[in-house]
Amino acid sequence: MIDIDRIRADTPATSRLAYLHNAGAALMPVPVVEAIKRHIDLESEIGGYAAADRECDRLEAVYGSVARLLNAAPDEIALMENATIAWQMAFYALPFRAGDRILTAEAEYAANYVAFLQVAKRTGAIIDVVPSDASGELDVDVLERMIDERVKLIAITWVPTNGGLVNPAAAVGKIARARGIPYLLDACQAVGQMSVDVEAIGCDMLSATGRKFLRGPRGTGFLYVRRALLRQLEPLMIDHFAAPWVSRDAYQLRDDARRFETWENNYAARLGLGAAVDYALDIGLDPIEQRCRLLAGRLRSGLASIRGVTIRDLGRAPGAIVSFTMEGYEAERIVGSAAAAGITIGASDPSSTRIDAEVRALPVVVRASPHYYNTEAEIDRLLTLLAGLAHR
Amino acid sequence: MIDIDRIRADTPATSRLAYLHNAGAALMPVPVVEAIKRHIDLESEIGGYAAADRECDRLEAVYGSVARLLNAAPDEIALMENATIAWQMAFYALPFRAGDRILTAEAEYAANYVAFLQVAKRTGAIIDVVPSDASGELDVDVLERMIDERVKLIAITWVPTNGGLVNPAAAVGKIARARGIPYLLDACQAVGQMSVDVEAIGCDMLSATGRKFLRGPRGTGFLYVRRALLRQLEPLMIDHFAAPWVSRDAYQLRDDARRFETWENNYAARLGLGAAVDYALDIGLDPIEQRCRLLAGRLRSGLASIRGVTIRDLGRAPGAIVSFTMEGYEAERIVGSAAAAGITIGASDPSSTRIDAEVRALPVVVRASPHYYNTEAEIDRLLTLLAGLAHR
Repeated sequence: MIDIDRIRADTPATSRLAYLHNAGAALMPVPVVEAIKRHIDLESEIGGYAAADRECDRLEAVYGSVARLLNAAPDEIALMENATIAWQMAFYALPFRAGDRILTAEAEYAANYVAFLQVAKRTGAIIDVVPSDASGELDVDVLERMIDERVKLIAITWVPTNGGLVNPAAAVGKIARARGIPYLLDACQAVGQMSVDVEAIGCDMLSATGRKFLRGPRGTGFLYVRRALLRQLEPLMIDHFAAPWVSRDAYQLRDDARRFETWENNYAARLGLGAAVDYALDIGLDPIEQRCRLLAGRLRSGLASIRGVTIRDLGRAPGAIVSFTMEGYEAERIVGSAAAAGITIGASDPSSTRIDAEVRALPVVVRASPHYYNTEAEIDRLLTLLAGLAHR
Repeated sequence: MIDIDRIRADTPATSRLAYLHNAGAALMPVPVVEAIKRHIDLESEIGGYAAADRECDRLEAVYGSVARLLNAAPDEIALMENATIAWQMAFYALPFRAGDRILTAEAEYAANYVAFLQVAKRTGAIIDVVPSDASGELDVDVLERMIDERVKLIAITWVPTNGGLVNPAAAVGKIARARGIPYLLDACQAVGQMSVDVEAIGCDMLSATGRKFLRGPRGTGFLYVRRALLRQLEPLMIDHFAAPWVSRDAYQLRDDARRFETWENNYAARLGLGAAVDYALDIGLDPIEQRCRLLAGRLRSGLASIRGVTIRDLGRAPGAIVSFTMEGYEAERIVGSAAAAGITIGASDPSSTRIDAEVRALPVVVRASPHYYNTEAEIDRLLTLLAGLAHR
């Protein structure tokens, strides 16, 4: 059982704001803010190097925390400035030749798709988009039929940015494993919202961000790479941390996932990330997921009865991102009305998930993403506001 | 004239520590610390996206500040997590073929050299190390004679990490421009210590860090790329910020240097970087350089009269990094003794500048790097400590 009162006390802004923008950047709890500021203070007291030395155990522990979050080992974790760099370091390390196929999903994120396009242009690899099934999820049966010996990567987003869809990540993993195909999972909107178990999913690489449902700082992300694959991948760019300069003409790549990192880092942000992961683990990802689904479900039920609202979420069991449009109101106007009423929500532009947006002819959609620290009353405030707009 | 008292009041740790480790990570002044913490607070009050929106003018101004620091235009500046990524994004965007030559200097930094080695392995390009002249500076005459039509890049470190050497960056720039060869300058230990003028230097690309003499936060760096070159360079890795996804099968690279960035960033750290640059500009880089040289000169003079000390600095007019060894004492022991006496200095390992270290058979060297906020008395405290060790 989540102690909502304690958690809201750890999140002072909840006393003023109905914050439903957790798929954008969630509110950091006090322990995260304190971890960041404490380290900045320490750096200004003893200098940046001495501060990192003094906190080396805590900094090392961040890898352990992320590993626990994912059911991975610490040496399979790399910490980076953001999820995009994490994803890029894995993706671009994979070798592609002309005719090789990359399989992805309709709701793939723009950042990933432009990288596919660049590699396709550079190498002659082919991007094949797996169609969605009637529910809007990636169609696992079609994926299975699309596989041949030329498929060199399956790369999908588990929980796309533009709505409630939760793609069948583990079913995809089963196929990837059975066919021996590397599987890169973008888990940006998934981590912190639900349990993530790389063994159960069967992915070989997973990237995620700190700032969304994990409630960590902006400018943090991480990468998981399965140990067996890791040692076969040479990052596209290296420094002497990733690959120590061992003799005049030779470098030696690290054995662990930190071969994808660089030497210099924002340690304050890393400690904030570690605090965020520990905070989530302490509450428990299963209770978090249950409460996220409860609140998102309440929001969808309420939306369904508001005139002119179309819920845009896909999939059999949508998660904590609720997307909708409203007749007569552009998304940005709804976001602005909500902001004026102390309710923080966001919008998702078609260009962030272009293929899905084209298939469904989506305009900009409103995106409301509750988290476990929200209350039923906050959901109802948003519904009341929207009902009011509908009746104008 | 620098108001040392005011500046030391802005740097509270100077009341307790003789901090001479500014080539590692300098002490941040209060305005930098406040800029970081204020933004973290704002993020926890209104959320990470709203905070970035509210501070968008200040965030945009960071580009202007860095541009002023370098005498460049804001659209020629990219902000990154660190100087290594900044350098990598420029270097790896350059095309190399078998037989192409990369010219570099003896004291080149390990991070850059392993990247040369990787690209040499990948493309068949050749790394040619320009020898140093009798003073230890890159020999500009030899450089000029080494140039032929196969030279596709000159990439050197202006102020190497392991001592007082200041390479003749502008003389190299003159040759690079005359011969039309791209010139990438690593200015990590230079920025914040001295005036940097990309027009006067004639470099096409310049990378630097925030945390060293600039007194900014850890986990910040930036890249300058001359406009004329910029538009010819496609980054090795892209996301939808660098290259918006404009239609299903196409991306369009940004026109400005932000094509080397990614979408998500640590905005608190960026604001800290901006505050650090503004702080330095406000004091003035010429007075800063004068005082750095004054204090480093005082340290070298004192060291010269201590028994068993060998000063290891190279070049005609060494800068603010003072490197030395001491008979009978390993570098780490000297660093430890100094730390116990409230004096923060560092050490430089041969593996960070392997070629120079091999040429000169260098062991680990002690590295003391004063900054304008230091006092003559602090320099003398270090000298007294070392003299005491020498007399044991």
